[in-house]
Amino acid sequence: MARKANKSNVVAYPAKKAARPAEKAADSGVPRQDDGRVMALDLPPGTLSEAMQAYFKKCEEKLGFVPNVLLAYAFDNAKLEAFAAFYNDLMLGPSGLSKLEREMIAVTVSSQNRCYYCLTAHGAAVRVYSGDPALGELMVMNYRAAKLTKKQRAMLDFSVKMTAQSYAIEEEDREALRRVGFSDRDIWDIAAVAGFFNMSNRIASATDMRPNAVYHRQGR
Amino acid sequence: MARKANKSNVVAYPAKKAARPAEKAADSGVPRQDDGRVMALDLPPGTLSEAMQAYFKKCEEKLGFVPNVLLAYAFDNAKLEAFAAFYNDLMLGPSGLSKLEREMIAVTVSSQNRCYYCLTAHGAAVRVYSGDPALGELMVMNYRAAKLTKKQRAMLDFSVKMTAQSYAIEEEDREALRRVGFSDRDIWDIAAVAGFFNMSNRIASATDMRPNAVYHRQGR
Amino acid sequence: MARKANKSNVVAYPAKKAARPAEKAADSGVPRQDDGRVMALDLPPGTLSEAMQAYFKKCEEKLGFVPNVLLAYAFDNAKLEAFAAFYNDLMLGPSGLSKLEREMIAVTVSSQNRCYYCLTAHGAAVRVYSGDPALGELMVMNYRAAKLTKKQRAMLDFSVKMTAQSYAIEEEDREALRRVGFSDRDIWDIAAVAGFFNMSNRIASATDMRPNAVYHRQGR
Amino acid sequence: MARKANKSNVVAYPAKKAARPAEKAADSGVPRQDDGRVMALDLPPGTLSEAMQAYFKKCEEKLGFVPNVLLAYAFDNAKLEAFAAFYNDLMLGPSGLSKLEREMIAVTVSSQNRCYYCLTAHGAAVRVYSGDPALGELMVMNYRAAKLTKKQRAMLDFSVKMTAQSYAIEEEDREALRRVGFSDRDIWDIAAVAGFFNMSNRIASATDMRPNAVYHRQGR
Amino acid sequence: MARKANKSNVVAYPAKKAARPAEKAADSGVPRQDDGRVMALDLPPGTLSEAMQAYFKKCEEKLGFVPNVLLAYAFDNAKLEAFAAFYNDLMLGPSGLSKLEREMIAVTVSSQNRCYYCLTAHGAAVRVYSGDPALGELMVMNYRAAKLTKKQRAMLDFSVKMTAQSYAIEEEDREALRRVGFSDRDIWDIAAVAGFFNMSNRIASATDMRPNAVYHRQGR
Amino acid sequence: MARKANKSNVVAYPAKKAARPAEKAADSGVPRQDDGRVMALDLPPGTLSEAMQAYFKKCEEKLGFVPNVLLAYAFDNAKLEAFAAFYNDLMLGPSGLSKLEREMIAVTVSSQNRCYYCLTAHGAAVRVYSGDPALGELMVMNYRAAKLTKKQRAMLDFSVKMTAQSYAIEEEDREALRRVGFSDRDIWDIAAVAGFFNMSNRIASATDMRPNAVYHRQGR
Repeated sequence: MARKANKSNVVAYPAKKAARPAEKAADSGVPRQDDGRVMALDLPPGTLSEAMQAYFKKCEEKLGFVPNVLLAYAFDNAKLEAFAAFYNDLMLGPSGLSKLEREMIAVTVSSQNRCYYCLTAHGAAVRVYSGDPALGELMVMNYRAAKLTKKQRAMLDFSVKMTAQSYAIEEEDREALRRVGFSDRDIWDIAAVAGFFNMSNRIASATDMRPNAVYHRQGR
Repeated sequence: MARKANKSNVVAYPAKKAARPAEKAADSGVPRQDDGRVMALDLPPGTLSEAMQAYFKKCEEKLGFVPNVLLAYAFDNAKLEAFAAFYNDLMLGPSGLSKLEREMIAVTVSSQNRCYYCLTAHGAAVRVYSGDPALGELMVMNYRAAKLTKKQRAMLDFSVKMTAQSYAIEEEDREALRRVGFSDRDIWDIAAVAGFFNMSNRIASATDMRPNAVYHRQGR
Repeated sequence: MARKANKSNVVAYPAKKAARPAEKAADSGVPRQDDGRVMALDLPPGTLSEAMQAYFKKCEEKLGFVPNVLLAYAFDNAKLEAFAAFYNDLMLGPSGLSKLEREMIAVTVSSQNRCYYCLTAHGAAVRVYSGDPALGELMVMNYRAAKLTKKQRAMLDFSVKMTAQSYAIEEEDREALRRVGFSDRDIWDIAAVAGFFNMSNRIASATDMRPNAVYHRQGR
Repeated sequence: MARKANKSNVVAYPAKKAARPAEKAADSGVPRQDDGRVMALDLPPGTLSEAMQAYFKKCEEKLGFVPNVLLAYAFDNAKLEAFAAFYNDLMLGPSGLSKLEREMIAVTVSSQNRCYYCLTAHGAAVRVYSGDPALGELMVMNYRAAKLTKKQRAMLDFSVKMTAQSYAIEEEDREALRRVGFSDRDIWDIAAVAGFFNMSNRIASATDMRPNAVYHRQGR
Repeated sequence: MARKANKSNVVAYPAKKAARPAEKAADSGVPRQDDGRVMALDLPPGTLSEAMQAYFKKCEEKLGFVPNVLLAYAFDNAKLEAFAAFYNDLMLGPSGLSKLEREMIAVTVSSQNRCYYCLTAHGAAVRVYSGDPALGELMVMNYRAAKLTKKQRAMLDFSVKMTAQSYAIEEEDREALRRVGFSDRDIWDIAAVAGFFNMSNRIASATDMRPNAVYHRQGR
Repeated sequence: MARKANKSNVVAYPAKKAARPAEKAADSGVPRQDDGRVMALDLPPGTLSEAMQAYFKKCEEKLGFVPNVLLAYAFDNAKLEAFAAFYNDLMLGPSGLSKLEREMIAVTVSSQNRCYYCLTAHGAAVRVYSGDPALGELMVMNYRAAKLTKKQRAMLDFSVKMTAQSYAIEEEDREALRRVGFSDRDIWDIAAVAGFFNMSNRIASATDMRPNAVYHRQGR
């Protein structure tokens, strides 16, 4: 069951380091939001395997930071490896869906579940991959207000139905995807990505996972 | 019933003109989102009163643009005047709530209703007033994940209950606001702002009102 | 931005004074419901402008009472004027929708939000305007059980969708209104009325606004 | 398993015949609502037993009409008898709950389910039994806005929880009823009445059962 | 209004006595679930009529036990008789729906309401009547995942709509049933069974009624 | 990132082969439910690695069958390996939660999402691990009706809140788990299992994954 991190997959998307720190706010009476905390559970860091140490190093080099979700899983090397392998295959591996489309599903699902971590991290990815800041905002706020191709809309509608009432999905829902041009393998990938963020959103909210502050500025 | 636009109130918040246009996206397969359209209803512009003409001119001078919501109402001068008077008293008039707090209510309510227009325009206002981009994002995404004072949290919880199940508000909800230090007049203002965005969100969604593109960049 | 109360608009609808007081109940073990209280917030009355004093006087002459919603706003003359101007333009101003149709929207929306004040006051208006007590009850209880023209039904369905899930309104919803004969201006007016009562319902519930007892008897 | 209709129970509540017919409406563009139809299913009348014939006759004498729900069941004498026996024991039989309290439960549950038939018929009963028209309206519109004793409020809260999420009722809910003074037998009766109207509301809506027009005027 | 228990109707379905007791669990840290308790209300047993005594005796002979729901009602002979008469006519009396179909409705409705008592007792009935254990599980878990005829599916869809939003049922829902071959009398019976379990589910949950342990094994 | 299937983890729980086939049903008019189909997507089987071939062989030896979820993933060896590694670490790896407790979470979450596959497969696991068939049924039907320790109840309440409204989880929810004795690491594990089944339920429903028929009989 050995699994290698595909080197070209380490960098989740072509982001640049955030250069300037958030400027000091005038005294607004509201506490500052970013404090570098990773999550609300107090779990001592585990001993990382060489593979995971190399993975973190590569994140630093390419992204400028290690995404907090990886730091959260780092209390247990086995869980971190299982998560990274699962995630990288899903979001960066071969698929009929582009990386942007997979991120659009990620953000649309995260919007249903109102997950601060995933909306921030993957909202940035949509802005960066698409080069269209407004598209990222629309996925966060209400994908129904976006201008999309019929195929993209069907993909997101399916993802939202999976999120809100998966028990009601039936053959006609799969047929709607086939009609706009998705293959059965594509349908699996849509289901897998939408399913995954229904997991990740919940784990992030359950542990109050905090996004790296740098995401807020990416792709604006 | 005469009502004058308070000059100092014309500028909704201290924003700068957006300087550079959105850069050209790589071909992502997703249509560009911003097209300058104001809303989905085709209503010929009305004849603006002198007061309203002056109001629009002042918007241009101070903000660099006329907010699309005002252009939407401009098909009927009477409606535009009534709306502007109502809005300016509510969001910019004297109140125990700061302008930032009123905008925080606006965005939190708009998040419940998933209103693209209001989340974009008022999310920008929260970023600008607070000087904290993350705070704006949190109001858009999930206010429960934000670090807030007890008073601010109570104010937003009340606004969300008003939005989701106003029929269930009872004396104990008002008491909860009084306990953290709000006066009865403050409670009115919280109710009035939360109520107003439950109207505005719905009119914006019903007419597919589009936010000015410039908002996306403000306060980042 | 001056705005005059249209004299012929002062009377919200052709009601008569309630003649006989509610008879004394047998001891039912339930407290009497009407006590003349206006709302749950304790706000000292403001100083009314001459225009507003005249407006209240006209209400007394024509309706026999000042609606409690106006008394509630009377703690602040600026807010009262803004509200009255906004309301009168909306519900009594020129529109492709009849006053009865606007009241039907008001009651249907208020039923979704279970607002005691608005259901009582505007339920009375539907009874009076239509001359059909059962129609008023149906709007309060379940508009789907009413016998309506296709156009009226489409108008109310749109209003209910705006109330329950405004984020899901799209072009096909507006098209459905156009197909049964509504113009884009009519659609604005439907949206404006439905939106307004989503505000008013919430402010009334948030402040426990109480309807004037006289409404219960009107149009029976 | 013989069961006799208790003579003193035949009259559901002390109502008078409605004297004057609804006045002709001005042409409002809305169809008249009352047309004497009983329900949307076309079921030929069955042969009534002597007991049921006597029961209907007594209704005519005491109420001035046979409630439409009984006419609906009259397609099958066995079903009519089973329903009448079940209903009369529940609503008119011996209980620690007064008839008014049972009707208050009936209307509160029917409001959750938005059942036109039951809201109309039992809303009238609350008005008549209590002598307080506003109380009837409050049960129809939003029982949370009514002034009630703690015991009555607990009774209705339990009924609403049974209606909205019966699966979540646990010992602490029953304890809340015991704490305000209800016996275990009272709790059964509350559950039985709330349960019954969750059945009746649904059968009435499923068959579009129409209330007798006379109810609208009773107890005003 | 006399009503006789039809002898052939006493046995609800062709079940055999459960032979072996549940085996002793390894110490799992979870309390054993079956303890023979009937419900959470403490109601002293009433004096049963001869008819009811005979009914209970026949249950013992044919089923091997008296269903706990009957023991729950036995605190009051009048209520027990009314319930038994109503139930037996509904579920065992003449109808265009087979007994299996009525039980399928019962379980599908009970699944919406998550009623442990009814899912257990009537889930067993579906397994026994159909001879297909998987069908019973599907009705309990998610009827949409079952392979059904169009007619059965329409019947269950109607029952679920009655359960979840009865207020939204209209003529087109009844037409959908007629189109697949149901008569108006069949529609009544579907509505009556779906309605009944919306009552029974709620009374069972409100009183924490516990199913006889023997049901778990029937029809496996 | 290499990961080995722990040999002792291959068998998900101590089940025996199902011996007798489902008996032939009398002609009930309902199609038989079990047909050996794995899912609704038509995906040609991939080439399994040696590790995965061995894994499937061990399933056959120990369980008597390969769980259909593994057959579903077998169209792509990389996905199968990532899933198996992730799943086995989660449900069978070291944890403060017993395997039974993890299965109880799995079934409770699957009940919220009404997932036929997971309810069937993991409902069987709860019956087998606990030796208490009624406990398995309660997790499927309504965990609130089960007799549980305070700790187990808190664990399931948290899992259900994660499922229904993860966005509303806050520090007080985590504190409630700590108060009954869970460590921060336990909280992670609860969140991870509840999160995982929110993914798996949705992928299973989206692809109409069918459980192996043998599960229905296990642990009865």
